Amino acid sequence: MKPIYFFDEGSGRNKKLLGGKGAGLIEMTRLGLPVPPGFTITTEVCTVYYDNNKKLPRNLMPQVKKNIQKIERKTGKEFGSLQNPLLVSVRSGAAISMPGMMDTILNLGLNDQTVIGLADASKNPRFAWDSYRRFVQLFGKVVFGIDDKQFDEVLQNAKRQQNVQQDHELSEQSLREIVSEYKSICQQYTGKLFPEDPYNQLALAIEAVFKSWMGERAVVYREKYKITKEIANGTAVSVVTMVFGNMGNDSVTGVIFTRNPSDGTRQIFGDYLVNAQGEDVVAGIRTPQPIDAMIKELPATYQQLMKTCEKLEKHFKEPQDIEFTVEKGRFYLLQTRAAKMNAAGMIKTSVDMLKERLISKERAILRLNPEDLDQLLHNTIDNEAAKNFNSLTKGIPASPGAASGKAIFDVKKAIQMGEEGVKVILVREETKPEDVPAFFASVGILTSRGGKTSHAAVVARGMGKPCIVGCNDMRIDYPGKKLLVDSKVVSEGEVITIDGSTGKVYVGEIPTVEPKLTDDFKTILGWAQKLKKLGIRANADTSQAAKLARIYGAEGIGLCRTERMFNARDRLPVFVEMIMAKTVTERKEVLEKLRLLQKEDFKEILRIMEGYHVTIRLLDPPLHEFLPNIEELINKIHLLESKGSSDELTASQRFLQRAKDLAEVNPMMGHRGVRVGITYPEIYEMQIRAICEAAAELTSENINNIHPQIMVPQVGSVSELDYIKKIYQNIKSDIEARSGIKLKINFGTMLEVVRACLTSDELAKVAEFFSFGTNDLTQAVFSFSREDVEGKFLPEYIEKEIIKENPFESLDSKGVGSLMQIAISKGRSVKPDLEIGICGEHGGDPRSVKFCHKAGLTYVSASSHRVPIAILAAAQVALEKQMKIPKTRPGHKK
Amino acid sequence: MKPIYFFDEGSGRNKKLLGGKGAGLIEMTRLGLPVPPGFTITTEVCTVYYDNNKKLPRNLMPQVKKNIQKIERKTGKEFGSLQNPLLVSVRSGAAISMPGMMDTILNLGLNDQTVIGLADASKNPRFAWDSYRRFVQLFGKVVFGIDDKQFDEVLQNAKRQQNVQQDHELSEQSLREIVSEYKSICQQYTGKLFPEDPYNQLALAIEAVFKSWMGERAVVYREKYKITKEIANGTAVSVVTMVFGNMGNDSVTGVIFTRNPSDGTRQIFGDYLVNAQGEDVVAGIRTPQPIDAMIKELPATYQQLMKTCEKLEKHFKEPQDIEFTVEKGRFYLLQTRAAKMNAAGMIKTSVDMLKERLISKERAILRLNPEDLDQLLHNTIDNEAAKNFNSLTKGIPASPGAASGKAIFDVKKAIQMGEEGVKVILVREETKPEDVPAFFASVGILTSRGGKTSHAAVVARGMGKPCIVGCNDMRIDYPGKKLLVDSKVVSEGEVITIDGSTGKVYVGEIPTVEPKLTDDFKTILGWAQKLKKLGIRANADTSQAAKLARIYGAEGIGLCRTERMFNARDRLPVFVEMIMAKTVTERKEVLEKLRLLQKEDFKEILRIMEGYHVTIRLLDPPLHEFLPNIEELINKIHLLESKGSSDELTASQRFLQRAKDLAEVNPMMGHRGVRVGITYPEIYEMQIRAICEAAAELTSENINNIHPQIMVPQVGSVSELDYIKKIYQNIKSDIEARSGIKLKINFGTMLEVVRACLTSDELAKVAEFFSFGTNDLTQAVFSFSREDVEGKFLPEYIEKEIIKENPFESLDSKGVGSLMQIAISKGRSVKPDLEIGICGEHGGDPRSVKFCHKAGLTYVSASSHRVPIAILAAAQVALEKQMKIPKTRPGHKK
Repeated sequence: MKPIYFFDEGSGRNKKLLGGKGAGLIEMTRLGLPVPPGFTITTEVCTVYYDNNKKLPRNLMPQVKKNIQKIERKTGKEFGSLQNPLLVSVRSGAAISMPGMMDTILNLGLNDQTVIGLADASKNPRFAWDSYRRFVQLFGKVVFGIDDKQFDEVLQNAKRQQNVQQDHELSEQSLREIVSEYKSICQQYTGKLFPEDPYNQLALAIEAVFKSWMGERAVVYREKYKITKEIANGTAVSVVTMVFGNMGNDSVTGVIFTRNPSDGTRQIFGDYLVNAQGEDVVAGIRTPQPIDAMIKELPATYQQLMKTCEKLEKHFKEPQDIEFTVEKGRFYLLQTRAAKMNAAGMIKTSVDMLKERLISKERAILRLNPEDLDQLLHNTIDNEAAKNFNSLTKGIPASPGAASGKAIFDVKKAIQMGEEGVKVILVREETKPEDVPAFFASVGILTSRGGKTSHAAVVARGMGKPCIVGCNDMRIDYPGKKLLVDSKVVSEGEVITIDGSTGKVYVGEIPTVEPKLTDDFKTILGWAQKLKKLGIRANADTSQAAKLARIYGAEGIGLCRTERMFNARDRLPVFVEMIMAKTVTERKEVLEKLRLLQKEDFKEILRIMEGYHVTIRLLDPPLHEFLPNIEELINKIHLLESKGSSDELTASQRFLQRAKDLAEVNPMMGHRGVRVGITYPEIYEMQIRAICEAAAELTSENINNIHPQIMVPQVGSVSELDYIKKIYQNIKSDIEARSGIKLKINFGTMLEVVRACLTSDELAKVAEFFSFGTNDLTQAVFSFSREDVEGKFLPEYIEKEIIKENPFESLDSKGVGSLMQIAISKGRSVKPDLEIGICGEHGGDPRSVKFCHKAGLTYVSASSHRVPIAILAAAQVALEKQMKIPKTRPGHKK
Repeated sequence: MKPIYFFDEGSGRNKKLLGGKGAGLIEMTRLGLPVPPGFTITTEVCTVYYDNNKKLPRNLMPQVKKNIQKIERKTGKEFGSLQNPLLVSVRSGAAISMPGMMDTILNLGLNDQTVIGLADASKNPRFAWDSYRRFVQLFGKVVFGIDDKQFDEVLQNAKRQQNVQQDHELSEQSLREIVSEYKSICQQYTGKLFPEDPYNQLALAIEAVFKSWMGERAVVYREKYKITKEIANGTAVSVVTMVFGNMGNDSVTGVIFTRNPSDGTRQIFGDYLVNAQGEDVVAGIRTPQPIDAMIKELPATYQQLMKTCEKLEKHFKEPQDIEFTVEKGRFYLLQTRAAKMNAAGMIKTSVDMLKERLISKERAILRLNPEDLDQLLHNTIDNEAAKNFNSLTKGIPASPGAASGKAIFDVKKAIQMGEEGVKVILVREETKPEDVPAFFASVGILTSRGGKTSHAAVVARGMGKPCIVGCNDMRIDYPGKKLLVDSKVVSEGEVITIDGSTGKVYVGEIPTVEPKLTDDFKTILGWAQKLKKLGIRANADTSQAAKLARIYGAEGIGLCRTERMFNARDRLPVFVEMIMAKTVTERKEVLEKLRLLQKEDFKEILRIMEGYHVTIRLLDPPLHEFLPNIEELINKIHLLESKGSSDELTASQRFLQRAKDLAEVNPMMGHRGVRVGITYPEIYEMQIRAICEAAAELTSENINNIHPQIMVPQVGSVSELDYIKKIYQNIKSDIEARSGIKLKINFGTMLEVVRACLTSDELAKVAEFFSFGTNDLTQAVFSFSREDVEGKFLPEYIEKEIIKENPFESLDSKGVGSLMQIAISKGRSVKPDLEIGICGEHGGDPRSVKFCHKAGLTYVSASSHRVPIAILAAAQVALEKQMKIPKTRPGHKK
């Protein structure tokens, strides 16, 4: 095990070993780009650190020293030197970029001695003391865990005393005093003197970076982004010679993207600050200048930047996210990594880079994250409606999309309300990594400070959540729980709307509209559709959803839930009337009304889906689900009783009686689906008749290319399916005889009961198709009640890593998946060409889609707005399979 | 297909083809025993009849005619003859005896002409007209479906007019008039003349017998006794020459068992009637004489009977149930079949017949029905307590065992109350086959008429339910809803106690005592224990149950449910206090109290089970199960509110709040078992500590041969088990360190979540044993909530044959069983010798036990009182496997 790589050693391709940052620095060095000398401690050392009960391996620091000495040779500077001291940054970096999640320390090597050396060498004592101040603060925060606030107070006091606005306006003397106060804070906190020995500082810093890997922020981030140990196991630590963007007005620090990450446009995008360190940009403390300003102000640097960008893109074949520093006119690259982009940006760059012949079509597809497409399928502000609203203020549009929600100024409150399901817009002056949980809980983010590369902007874009930053004329009164723009006030809890595409903030809720697909999006979708092998259908219960599904590329409807049709406002009373019917005759009369309504629904959907299969599921939920809640009824009855008897009381009592008769201890496993179909056959008869009649009527209208499929839910044994099939065949024959039309309808079953999977060979003899209901199947395989666990023990299970991820979001391949494979193999043993699909929410989850492809399913069915995601995922898995080179088996020549 | 077998054709071994009755008659004919000539129409014809839309096959009646002609040749009588008419009985008989469930017609061949021939030939016109009367009544009832009441009224009127008590006291003239009135009833009912042609009568009778196969009584009986189509598919019809037990005082009819069916004693047991037909005995209309009376009254017949019994037992190697008739001194056998005996009888005869060298030990075991042992494990009256009660009356003890219940005189009411869970004693003058459903619903049966072979007695014995018959001094006033014994009155709903072993009836509830095992029982159990391969353990939660388990032969405890310990009256408040605790600290304090109680419980049980494994399951049910019902709380709060505020109101509101917090939509799949153990670790910690401490303390008391096993419920993934195992290991180490005792405890998991079965290879790495929880597994595999389905759609499912039998009673081998096999094979792939058991109610179901043996389980665990049943079933399946002759594979010589 080689614990340390100097930047001119090894390969920058091994991100898992070197972390993204280290790999980038090594690769840039190999490309001959100007990178300050340095070295990377591998992620393996991090693992050893944790295995070793959180102690650095004994042989590490001697090796570090050797590498420091190599830097000293290259730079002519010396660690701890009074003359020309070497300063380094200590940077974290895992295989997967986790922006802002782990810690970095700058200016390490400074102490009361070397600061004088630095002042001398740079001939800029103010700079030296400013660097020292920054170092002590970062060190105190990162290594000792001291709250930033304590340092900030000292700084703010000093600025007030000096009567200045900006940090860089502070005098040398003032900085000296600040350093002294900072060190007192540290000593008070630790009870020890501040470490003066640079190697001692370095060892502590390396350890702190390792520790930050298991810090709460980082752990939450990895959970949310499903970064498992297999993907990234620990952080590397890069130790890099400090270069300074704050060494005067010929010094610059900047962060840029080689292409615009908001929309993918081929133009450099980012900000820079003159006479500043990188921290100032990222933290959003000073609002930086847009990179375009550099064309005029620093044309030579701009040219160098342009060339560098081109070189990096050609090499990495990905848009890059670069940190650079100009120290007294000399250009340095401090970091490069694949640019995090929103979906629009990724799609445009995929299409563009293909045109530029940078990448192949396969790569254009494979580099996209299907889940991210969701961003493009989000709503935007309805411009027509927006006309009635005057914007309150305007900031920098940092992440596109529109959202309305209650303005909340407190992070904890935002989390709490968000988790309760309240739509929240988080409004802050600026955000920090520890605020990320609130991002997850909010529908949008609004800050008064920062630029396009500030923390808030980067994180929100990554999540695809609308975000506006740098809203300078907005003042936030935290204690008063309000925001002010001039004389206008928005109090906590008032609804605001933000438009992340324009930067406009509105008071009140503005309606939003469905997103329109860009040409690039359509191009990608077209490629994906051709590449994929798996069929993609949509879950759609209404004609609107069916239309959207076709626009999004669905090849049919995999799940049309007939009960959702009953939930419409005009139908629910009729359905309830049916449930309350005292006799079969009475019930049949009410069902007649529903039959006509359902028939028209089916006709409409079949018409829209002409040419494609439409799978209609017969009634699934238990009947009591349509009745009023028992507790509410009891309370209502008590209230009505106290007022004396009334008709309403009698009616409520009747409802209560029926609801109690139908009530179940475990409705999930109760009297529903085919069980209702068998015990109240008149309900399924009505639905089957409506489907058959719809098909017959459309055929008589010369709409011939329709493919209705009747699907029976909750089947657990073949006799159930047989029972319903007989009913179906009778009705079908009847309608064929009446209409003289031969109906082409398939009859099949859900596989959502475990027993159905285990006996699918028997079912395959009766069914013409299968469709896995993985929502219910997941419940049954885990014995988890979805309605309960997500609000009870499941979050704790995920937190304690008992379950890696919510199995209702991503298919549990080990449990549910293996049961599915049993069912597929038994089913196809009877009918090799059996159509087997999956409906349920997993159909729109990329990883589940990939599992379904590998398991040999015919199609997945996803909710309409997730159809493009499923298509892309299906294309990727088809490519991944293609791109595996088949192994040649040795020693088996014939 | 040969549709008809004459009694001297074919083999009497083929019961499936010939039915039990036909096969018996054929076999007896082959043995040279005196059987009246006749023939049997096969069960295959019955199947054809149903396949043929309930029409007799065309070629049947011509074949019947040929066989009738053969009878005519043998008897010298002639069908329809005016001189010497042949009369036949038409009898049902399926492969499995279903006593009284199907129809029989006697004296067929009589009409207005032949009756005169019969009168002449028998020189007994009264007899001829009495036979004709019986024939018309039976024909009217069976073929036309006319209610018996109509005929009874005519008969009772005639007896009143003639001023006689008994049927046989009626004069010829009176009988002529009765026949005429009977025929009017038939004509009025059918609108046609009564059929006079004997062949026409015969065809109608054969069809009526076939029809009775699907009669409601027969269908219910087959369902209850699980007689599937594979076991018996239709009834055969035997047509037998009539012989007459009512031809004067030298004629007799009787029904006997070759051994006493109540206790198995080797003595002829039964009744006979002089000058009567068999119907009179079975229907209990006349109280017959016990068979012993025959020794004096008809010594020659008695001798013939004894010899016949011996011959039949030697041939069939089973005690027989025989119908015989003596016609004018000539002895005839009309039926033989294996005697239905209660469990005590079966066990004694098994032991006796082995001693008599009639059967082998294997046959002695295999002939027993394990389920029947349940009868012997029923309670009997506590004689000490009975001293305080004077018996109300005494009848004939017809089925042993004691029971207390509400006296109910109406069949429907008994069914209704029984299904509601009320203990009911059915009290009737006599019972009929259509009353059988009430038998199922009652805990005991009491009749005022009939003998030991009356309907009530036979059925009750078959069910192992206490029964007293022939309680002559008891008068039942149906309209007045009361019974009277002299001046004493018992009204409907009053509790009575019957002792089926003594025949005594008591008013009030007398305590009962656990049954004691007879020596024969112990002998059988001993053989079975040696023969079986499968381990048998008990589900026992208390020291009482553990003691009983050992007496019954259990080899350890497979399931000790710790939560049942919390349900004790003195503990529930403490447990509720724990649930209501506001902090972890508070909860831990309460748990301390419970720990001490549980530790003592464990010590006691481990002590009783010294030498055996004791598997203790950690808390399983969700916490809300221990709190008051929400609806009741709401109603209580409304009540308390109307009275104004109070402490009780506050307490109730607190309970309601907590109950609501904990409430779940589907508690079955909710926050329970290991999920509670992980989220409230202090509960499992307490239980694990109590187990470890109990083991340590017993060891320090020099009780060393103890084998506690800790079992975790509801496990679905290996991480859950890992999590609890760590807790367990810490506690174990702690107690080992404190006590200086090395604890031998196994740690294992339930397999009751589907996912556990699918990932059992992973679990096997962490668990030292598995135990299937087939109750929960059945729920999950079917998605059936046991608490709901049994009261909702499951009965309808079983009725509609969608499910063959309740999967909660007998293991569903196709679904649940195949999942178990997956789990066993995956688990053993990791640990080949892994202990795998099953706990849950299936452990006491013989068929499930047999499945478990075949699936290779280590043991089954059954509730204590079903342990002997499991032992016997396990021995049988071991024998069944042994007795299969291994196939020699042809063409594979080496």
